[in-house]
Amino acid sequence: MAADNAVGQHTELTQLADERVDFRFKGLPPDADGLTVGELAAQGRNLFTGGFTTPVLALSAECVAHNLALMETYSTRHGLAFAPHGKTSMAPELFARQERHGAWGITLAVPHQVRVARAHGFRRIFLANELVDAAALRWLAAELTADPEFRFVCYVDSERGVELMDAALREAGATRPVDVVVELGAGDGARTGVRTEAECAAVADAVATAPTLRLTGVAGYEGEVPQADPERVHAWLRRLVALAAEFDKAGRFAGLDEIVVSAGGSAWFDAVADVFAEIPELSAPVLKLLRSGAYVSHDDGHYKELTPFNRVPEEGTLQPAFRLWAQVVSRPNPEQAFTNAGKRDAAYDLHLPAAQVVRDARDGSQRPATGIEVTGLSDQHAWLRTSPEADLEVGDWVGMGLSHPCTSFDKWQLIPLVEADGTVTDYIRTYF
Amino acid sequence: MAADNAVGQHTELTQLADERVDFRFKGLPPDADGLTVGELAAQGRNLFTGGFTTPVLALSAECVAHNLALMETYSTRHGLAFAPHGKTSMAPELFARQERHGAWGITLAVPHQVRVARAHGFRRIFLANELVDAAALRWLAAELTADPEFRFVCYVDSERGVELMDAALREAGATRPVDVVVELGAGDGARTGVRTEAECAAVADAVATAPTLRLTGVAGYEGEVPQADPERVHAWLRRLVALAAEFDKAGRFAGLDEIVVSAGGSAWFDAVADVFAEIPELSAPVLKLLRSGAYVSHDDGHYKELTPFNRVPEEGTLQPAFRLWAQVVSRPNPEQAFTNAGKRDAAYDLHLPAAQVVRDARDGSQRPATGIEVTGLSDQHAWLRTSPEADLEVGDWVGMGLSHPCTSFDKWQLIPLVEADGTVTDYIRTYF
Repeated sequence: MAADNAVGQHTELTQLADERVDFRFKGLPPDADGLTVGELAAQGRNLFTGGFTTPVLALSAECVAHNLALMETYSTRHGLAFAPHGKTSMAPELFARQERHGAWGITLAVPHQVRVARAHGFRRIFLANELVDAAALRWLAAELTADPEFRFVCYVDSERGVELMDAALREAGATRPVDVVVELGAGDGARTGVRTEAECAAVADAVATAPTLRLTGVAGYEGEVPQADPERVHAWLRRLVALAAEFDKAGRFAGLDEIVVSAGGSAWFDAVADVFAEIPELSAPVLKLLRSGAYVSHDDGHYKELTPFNRVPEEGTLQPAFRLWAQVVSRPNPEQAFTNAGKRDAAYDLHLPAAQVVRDARDGSQRPATGIEVTGLSDQHAWLRTSPEADLEVGDWVGMGLSHPCTSFDKWQLIPLVEADGTVTDYIRTYF
Repeated sequence: MAADNAVGQHTELTQLADERVDFRFKGLPPDADGLTVGELAAQGRNLFTGGFTTPVLALSAECVAHNLALMETYSTRHGLAFAPHGKTSMAPELFARQERHGAWGITLAVPHQVRVARAHGFRRIFLANELVDAAALRWLAAELTADPEFRFVCYVDSERGVELMDAALREAGATRPVDVVVELGAGDGARTGVRTEAECAAVADAVATAPTLRLTGVAGYEGEVPQADPERVHAWLRRLVALAAEFDKAGRFAGLDEIVVSAGGSAWFDAVADVFAEIPELSAPVLKLLRSGAYVSHDDGHYKELTPFNRVPEEGTLQPAFRLWAQVVSRPNPEQAFTNAGKRDAAYDLHLPAAQVVRDARDGSQRPATGIEVTGLSDQHAWLRTSPEADLEVGDWVGMGLSHPCTSFDKWQLIPLVEADGTVTDYIRTYF
């Protein structure tokens, strides 16, 4: 999907460059205190020699650019609109890059995240959750009234949810209906979503009687299909498409300009592409909305193993963009070393960080992290086990790959974007 | 220890009340956008009816006050100076409350945390880590030069570390020596720290030849004693005290006004109190510095089980101060429910959150969370298993207890301090 005039008008984003660098942002050079982010970026400091302190998370400029381009190509090739899940990075500047790379809009998970996106001028937001919080709905109604170009879609997955939404939106004096899609659950025991097609119809009936809501499609998340394999995931996606066709046939989408059918995390977007290619002609054009978000940084663990590109290597390869640099602060014996990065700095929910390279404190040279394994994390330390071939001393920096972009981004509020030679070209602000 | 004139002069803290409430702070009322934190606090809003959005973490005003007072009493009773570990909360306003409750100063783990404390006027900082980062040491040297009242102590645990510190401080033109304590490791296979007394002496020798450093004592962390039990922890603490006595006898503390002996996490401070009471008379007064930090919020899991007050109930009881409120967004069947709080919102490294109470969406009444168990966390959802007696619907709020203060605080940047009746009296800003 090409960007259109609802995209790219984020004058609010320029405020990010005016943010002051100070004690709030770990890892950044203490001697940059008081500069703006824009001024610091313009200095083009080197990550290793420019006064950065450890630990510091680096995001590869080249890998991010590559990943943005690859998913643009992928979604275009497969005729998919793209609303990458912004919960991964919660970085408005990355959202803007995603839109410049053709994204239709941004997916988010909770109302707070929608506020972050709206504060930075984003106008197409898919909230992949039911929204029954009266205070958040009051805010949403005001946003929709204030900005006629703001397009918002969220899930409904219960009659009770529809009732709560409608009541809150009425009380808020909503001036235009909120677009909703019925969420089809990914199976028995899966996460949120309506379990059966009959219940989906009941929820859609409830929406039809709620003047503050408008049913615009169906959606779900194939990543939660129990015992997921290609067959089960394809089968569930076909249920989702069949539900859209059934709703359409029943006249539930009458009068729409566009019908939304959405799925797609970061592990099965090849299956989404396959099945969404089979969507039959409906009574209005279909917005086939893919929501994968982890690709922007990719990783060296969970998604490295699960990415669909492993099944379709001819379509490309994502590149892991994170490297966490920490410093060895203790080397008490030949089998142990400790760095100054811990649970506050690194993802640890799916895998531990993996030591990749060592930067020598004496001469700045880099070597592979041979014989070095991260075996645990304390709050502020990583535990490293070292075998005899490990060449590691107090003061050396250890560069580590991470597993799970979502729990990596959320530990850093201002992340250097670093070129291969170490030059920091920009800083990515996150809001969690 | 009573507060003295080095304490409580934190004019920088008043800036916290001037912070603007906006999209950066999840959970806060959208209609408070643009107010200052001080103005919002003055409104005395109710957490449940005042426009807060879910998920929202609440910190009990009464429990925090109780815990602050209890540890003041405890440390005073046992003749201990207190430098609570600030890494737990990273909240300058809580640091200030800790100092007002008699704390000697604040312990921190990494240089970035020291910058946060210094930016808020804290003048006594114990860095419980070796510091070999040249950029951070340059910043530290400048701070020590600029403020003669700034007292800073950190670990050394290797000759190599001493060499790196000295080189960096010389290059930075340090004008007064940095106080260091030799860290005694808690045993074979434990975390950082020198493994043997002979190696401790070698590190102390290295400090003696480094003009930029001054040896002021010994320290360590009994929380990492392998297979910790009261006997092993007491034995290690006696090693620490013996090391101090040996160093003193060898004249290593000659000329000091005060000798620092420090230990104490949140699981064994009773043992620290026992053993530090036995510290013999040395050549200068001994600053017996306890560093426990988790007490300020306490918890409903890890530290509830491990707190020393379980062994000495006659000395008091800490009260868990956190309650995470999330909203049920999906109730797909009688056995499952999902709330909108996940890994981004709750500690999950030691235990999952525990459902405690349900607030009914219909009438605001509260009931015990009977038959409701949190069985997993996604990034933005909690998975709840519900038994037949569970009374739970979409829209209800679930109040959950958390396990591990450190990984609870670090997911929230502005935390409502809430009285028992729901009135929010203040907001605690964290900097991670």
